[in-house]
Amino acid sequence: MFASIITIGDEILIGQIIDTNSAWISKKLNEAGVIVKEIRSIGDNREQIIGTITEMMEISDLVLVTGGLGPTNDDITKNVLCELFSSKLILSEAVLQNIKEFVTLRGFKMNTNNHDQAMVPDNAIVLNNKMGTAPGMLFIKNGKYIISLPGVPFEMKHLMETQVLPFIKKTFINKPIIHKTLLIYGLPESILAEKISEWENALPEFVKLAYLPAPGFIRLRLSIYEAEPEHQMLIEDLLKNLKKIIAKNIFAEEDIKPEVLIGQLLKAKGKTLSTAESCTGGKISSLITSIPGSSVYYKGSIIAYDNSVKTNILAVKSETLKEYGAVSQQVVEEMALGVRKILKTDYSIAVSGIAGPDGGTPEKPVGTIWIAVASDKKTVSKKYQSLNDRETNILRASNTALAMLIEIIK
Amino acid sequence: MFASIITIGDEILIGQIIDTNSAWISKKLNEAGVIVKEIRSIGDNREQIIGTITEMMEISDLVLVTGGLGPTNDDITKNVLCELFSSKLILSEAVLQNIKEFVTLRGFKMNTNNHDQAMVPDNAIVLNNKMGTAPGMLFIKNGKYIISLPGVPFEMKHLMETQVLPFIKKTFINKPIIHKTLLIYGLPESILAEKISEWENALPEFVKLAYLPAPGFIRLRLSIYEAEPEHQMLIEDLLKNLKKIIAKNIFAEEDIKPEVLIGQLLKAKGKTLSTAESCTGGKISSLITSIPGSSVYYKGSIIAYDNSVKTNILAVKSETLKEYGAVSQQVVEEMALGVRKILKTDYSIAVSGIAGPDGGTPEKPVGTIWIAVASDKKTVSKKYQSLNDRETNILRASNTALAMLIEIIK
Repeated sequence: MFASIITIGDEILIGQIIDTNSAWISKKLNEAGVIVKEIRSIGDNREQIIGTITEMMEISDLVLVTGGLGPTNDDITKNVLCELFSSKLILSEAVLQNIKEFVTLRGFKMNTNNHDQAMVPDNAIVLNNKMGTAPGMLFIKNGKYIISLPGVPFEMKHLMETQVLPFIKKTFINKPIIHKTLLIYGLPESILAEKISEWENALPEFVKLAYLPAPGFIRLRLSIYEAEPEHQMLIEDLLKNLKKIIAKNIFAEEDIKPEVLIGQLLKAKGKTLSTAESCTGGKISSLITSIPGSSVYYKGSIIAYDNSVKTNILAVKSETLKEYGAVSQQVVEEMALGVRKILKTDYSIAVSGIAGPDGGTPEKPVGTIWIAVASDKKTVSKKYQSLNDRETNILRASNTALAMLIEIIK
Repeated sequence: MFASIITIGDEILIGQIIDTNSAWISKKLNEAGVIVKEIRSIGDNREQIIGTITEMMEISDLVLVTGGLGPTNDDITKNVLCELFSSKLILSEAVLQNIKEFVTLRGFKMNTNNHDQAMVPDNAIVLNNKMGTAPGMLFIKNGKYIISLPGVPFEMKHLMETQVLPFIKKTFINKPIIHKTLLIYGLPESILAEKISEWENALPEFVKLAYLPAPGFIRLRLSIYEAEPEHQMLIEDLLKNLKKIIAKNIFAEEDIKPEVLIGQLLKAKGKTLSTAESCTGGKISSLITSIPGSSVYYKGSIIAYDNSVKTNILAVKSETLKEYGAVSQQVVEEMALGVRKILKTDYSIAVSGIAGPDGGTPEKPVGTIWIAVASDKKTVSKKYQSLNDRETNILRASNTALAMLIEIIK
């Protein structure tokens, strides 16, 4: 079963927003055994919407459309769909009721814009939206399914999870797609490829291998489409052989965010964590606390952006700062020991570096990052050299620090 | 002049990564007066690559392709382009030299994979890549320009900025595109639309208006394509009239990130900032420090995820915590005053709330957020109710806190 995704909105084509919906939808469809053939982003333009949906209906069984359902005049998707599928708009009492509740709960009054959103196509199945005012719509034509959802990510996700995915799983029986991902650190892509080339060349033709570099690590993914039951076993065997070559560089055997894995490990062991961040400026803390329930194991962080915070709160010695500089093994270790003691945690992470674009020196160029991880038993520190832009340097330092912590906890 | 963007990679279609390249490229092309007609994401698949490039060449003057240029076997873009444009691969000494330097600088040895990346099509203009090992390529066919760039964002950006954009600006003269964006907070989309409907209905036909909700604020964008010189003045007049209606809800008159605007304001006034975060877990700090040079005005943060950090470091009184709970006006104000004093800054922000999905109570449901901003003159605090998922609740709280600070500084 094949699907296509269409995201509608001029804001995408002028680069004002990043389309995050397509990736999320693709992942969910894959999990349901549906293969996504293509993703297209187009403008709020009648001809383009009609043309693209018509083309996508030819190559796919399911066409998922997001965007253009808002209450304002620039949103035309609903009217264009009505034209394409010869629908009349009728009032849905259920949707109207939902919109009324939604608007009232936020302390505002219903207006004409809100009321118009309760008008729905007479030949569509309406997907009532509890997280917003724009309902989703499901059209069936020539055996193809066309689903229109709002572009606001959490509204789209809500409708996907509560209505669209259950519908797909009920309506279609798909052969599973197997994706198996390993997370690898400490090796650049080309060296990794060289190390495992013999293993890679021996892979059966229907097993696809992909290398996906991320800041601080590489995802290595094996995929089998339309998998048979015995393929699960095959994947396990392939992995066993791979591990003989690069076992020590694998820090996770699933496509998991490092911060999620850390949460699982700390919870299982009943241990706690704190962080002290300089150049990463709260990124590590933000990643860790993005996980629901992280308050169980994460106590907090001292973001010591200014050196005075390093000395006054983290108790880094002024002499250490003076002698070695803020970006040094000595300072980062004192930061890790300091925050672990002050916040009374089992583990701590500390990072100090030069994120750039300015602030580098010949001895410590932009991208020089010192990371320390402390436990009750030891303090481990390493220097990394990142060579990218500020955002990537920060993310690479954060992910590398998390990977180091995973190694220590394990 | 019209462009299309094609991003190649199975990892996009299975939802393993989010395509951020297209938005960035679109923005840059818009700034150069180039209109992006469509964005397509396709797999590492020969037929699909050939078919899509061929179709996009029909509707656009410029086709920008990213992805599939890596050193590993799953990357096939270069070979497919050679097939499509009847190219032979020849060795580029300049590219080889660049790859050698790049690999050596990282402490690794050249291997066959690296060497193959120096083979380039004989009929393409080669865009040597100083940030990685995969060169970009420019083909010209039937008066159309096809540019292939690596998919790694910072490599793509580097080639765009140093080679592709200068080439476009030199080769084509385009009528400018005007985009004018206002940032608005404190009003939901439908109410905003109602308030300004008379003004909106009076807009000339060639002026497009778009509403773009973001967590914590709304972007309102006016656009004129193929603008004439006098249109700049027209936009100013339209804005003057708009401000008569919603002046107090506008916190920025350009499409600027709140954290960038805060940096500009604090630098201009020579003032400093600190933050104390509970439910936002470092997100505000991470946003502020994402800006180069933020160390001038930002001293740091206490991430008080655990209540012990609130009392021990921020000096929040135990009685206040006990009597009102961590998510309260009293606690968030004590947090703001505490961090401002301890980190010795002019301004401070404090946030405490329930990000969800768990932890809510009937009196304080998930999404209840208290925000306080303190200066030497006063402490202002407000309660907000967010009704979304954890990630959006955190981002909404962070952006709202930044908008509150902007109001206070101004």
